[in-house]
Amino acid sequence: MTDLETLTRAGDLRELNRWLDEAGTLEIAEELARLAPPAKAVAFRLLGRDRALAVFEHLDPVHQQQVLEGLRDDRVRQLVEDMEPDDRARLIGELPASVATRVLSGLSPAQRAMTAALLGYPEESAGRIMSPEYVYLRESMTAADALERVRRAGAGAETVYMLPVTDDERRLQGVVSLREVVLAPPEARIGELMTREVHRVHATDDQEVAARLVQEAGLLALPVLDSEDRLVGIITVDDAMHVIEAEDTEDVALHGATQPLGRPYLAASVIGVARSRAAWLLVLIAASALTVNVLQLFEDTLETMVTLALFIPLITGTGGNTGAQASTVVIRAMAVGEVRFGDLPRVVGREARVGVTLGAFLAVIGFVPVAVVFGADIAVVVSITLLATCTWATFAGSLLPMLARRAGVDPAVVSAPLITTLVDATGLVIYFVVARAVLDV
Amino acid sequence: MTDLETLTRAGDLRELNRWLDEAGTLEIAEELARLAPPAKAVAFRLLGRDRALAVFEHLDPVHQQQVLEGLRDDRVRQLVEDMEPDDRARLIGELPASVATRVLSGLSPAQRAMTAALLGYPEESAGRIMSPEYVYLRESMTAADALERVRRAGAGAETVYMLPVTDDERRLQGVVSLREVVLAPPEARIGELMTREVHRVHATDDQEVAARLVQEAGLLALPVLDSEDRLVGIITVDDAMHVIEAEDTEDVALHGATQPLGRPYLAASVIGVARSRAAWLLVLIAASALTVNVLQLFEDTLETMVTLALFIPLITGTGGNTGAQASTVVIRAMAVGEVRFGDLPRVVGREARVGVTLGAFLAVIGFVPVAVVFGADIAVVVSITLLATCTWATFAGSLLPMLARRAGVDPAVVSAPLITTLVDATGLVIYFVVARAVLDV
Repeated sequence: MTDLETLTRAGDLRELNRWLDEAGTLEIAEELARLAPPAKAVAFRLLGRDRALAVFEHLDPVHQQQVLEGLRDDRVRQLVEDMEPDDRARLIGELPASVATRVLSGLSPAQRAMTAALLGYPEESAGRIMSPEYVYLRESMTAADALERVRRAGAGAETVYMLPVTDDERRLQGVVSLREVVLAPPEARIGELMTREVHRVHATDDQEVAARLVQEAGLLALPVLDSEDRLVGIITVDDAMHVIEAEDTEDVALHGATQPLGRPYLAASVIGVARSRAAWLLVLIAASALTVNVLQLFEDTLETMVTLALFIPLITGTGGNTGAQASTVVIRAMAVGEVRFGDLPRVVGREARVGVTLGAFLAVIGFVPVAVVFGADIAVVVSITLLATCTWATFAGSLLPMLARRAGVDPAVVSAPLITTLVDATGLVIYFVVARAVLDV
Repeated sequence: MTDLETLTRAGDLRELNRWLDEAGTLEIAEELARLAPPAKAVAFRLLGRDRALAVFEHLDPVHQQQVLEGLRDDRVRQLVEDMEPDDRARLIGELPASVATRVLSGLSPAQRAMTAALLGYPEESAGRIMSPEYVYLRESMTAADALERVRRAGAGAETVYMLPVTDDERRLQGVVSLREVVLAPPEARIGELMTREVHRVHATDDQEVAARLVQEAGLLALPVLDSEDRLVGIITVDDAMHVIEAEDTEDVALHGATQPLGRPYLAASVIGVARSRAAWLLVLIAASALTVNVLQLFEDTLETMVTLALFIPLITGTGGNTGAQASTVVIRAMAVGEVRFGDLPRVVGREARVGVTLGAFLAVIGFVPVAVVFGADIAVVVSITLLATCTWATFAGSLLPMLARRAGVDPAVVSAPLITTLVDATGLVIYFVVARAVLDV
């Protein structure tokens, strides 16, 4: 099977054209994303205007920028002019300032004004991802009027499936779906067809909150209001899905102790990737220095009984894993809205009980093999330590993310790696205290 | 602020009714999910039929089941009869067999046949989440005919915004959106309006693949075909979003070394939660036993120089964290389709270079403090070990998930915790080999 990469490298334009004809827009976008920057524009230039736009809108802003760099100015202008305003705002928000200004100035006045308005909202806000082009209705219209209005105004709107109903001052009165309009008798009043209980957000609200609302409530579009409660745009379900994917990627990154790259993995440089991880590694290695100090405190004990050193990685590893399990589950439950701060006593209590159960289980399982190889004394120390460490780890692993959330910090920041490292040090203290008590060294 | 939980406990029906009147269906569903099982049905019974259905459809199957247990048989029958076929299949798939049979037998023949058909597809397949109720068109229809058909048949369908076009044998010819139908001149032919290049899946395909396709291509609905390429249903965007949320939750769980609970966190018992984590802890502790063996091999070295023991948690911790970073990023990049198996040499090569960069950075940062406190010899050993371990950890952390994917194993299974534990043991070997060479002990 040939792919776009091979064809572009071979430079056979006829084969390339044939491939582009047969492939779907999504497939072209995926393959284009994998090409080297100059090759991107070469392949892109072969696409017709409509297909080019469709492919372009599927690309990530990083790749969009690489395509733009290889196109002539008039083609750039055309392409950006044709984009949806919210996608355009997203692209322009990520371009270098000088390029952004040039691209903006090439737009028609109407499109420029719309894009500038979106860019006026804070980053990560609902206003940045909304579409200002929607079809609105009035309560006094009939279903037939409404359908006529959709016919006239619908071509430019991002969606016509959810139709907001406003008053003369653009205040939201309700929404009606195109399906309800089509299915209703032609003379039915919109004021009677519409739903007044409407989910809505403000343009300055966090876009993740808006996106999760679209997902939870199963909406096709969500009205966005300004500070005076006037309708300024709508967020469509596909934009919401992109936000959720990006937010989940961010959570996953933090969970693995890396800063989010903010761009596709293969589009980032080695130095960029290393930089995204270096800060976290430094924090964690600084926290690990604590374990060196703890062990120093117990150096005498270690010298008397070197065997104790053999179990250090096992104890810290198991504590770390148990803590990671607890924090992972609690962070995800908060992210999807199953758990709130008020549930803290319940959640932490449950986790502590889970920790006792798991610790007891591991203590029992581990006792015999350790006793056989290293003697009963050591086995008692290891088992007691496992029980205590697991309980402590689930307790801390559930408590810290919830406190972080309460303090306004993204709980994903206090996730597995940080908790693992903190539990390492406390686990060692538990281990040596138990060892001293039991072994009398 | 009063909430449903307080009100239900107080048992003040008038207040309860007032709260239910004022709250939105999504809010009611969220609050209902938090009540004790018997209280769920008490509050639920106060809802009118339409609202009850809307609230019920927002609940997770676990909570739906708890509500059903508290309702009279005729109310159960009514509620389940009114559900969308795919939501109903999901609920019935999770009910105990005896209850499922009773609920199924209470359905009308048409609804029962539809549900049974969906349940006939494998778990996790696209067939399970599709809606068999859709409005299809013919190429020969005009836009006006199509609109008339939507009016007549649209009430029962889950969506009418994407309209599949089929031939006499139900083979998919193309799709047209309701928007295109509404905007077109009434006499335009569907065969000319429709798009022939259509994303599609088979009913036995994995539902995550289908859901990601809906997300990537920004679809409102995706046609589903049977093994003979006949149209059997469509997957709507809201169902796709639920699948993606569930799959992401599953990935996150595996990432934290726990089996997915398959139900909301607070709805799971302490024993259930402990069980979901016990298997992974056992695997990891068995792998940790390796570290005990490794240290035993070097017990003589440790006895000669106990100071070496002080850095054991720091070395294993840092190696583990670096490996976790690499695996997290690579697993996510594969999940969202940015990286494929063919990219293996490129990805592993990048990661190894990232590892060298990070290791060199940490080695330089760490050298002076360690040298001051413990002497230059130990500092040399620690720095060389950090450099080697970081490189090895990013290499293994990126290679293993990609090989797992190739072998057909969910890469999330080979994620952070497992890699951390494997890197622990190899990191110790590196550490002591370096120590013996440098310190001559």
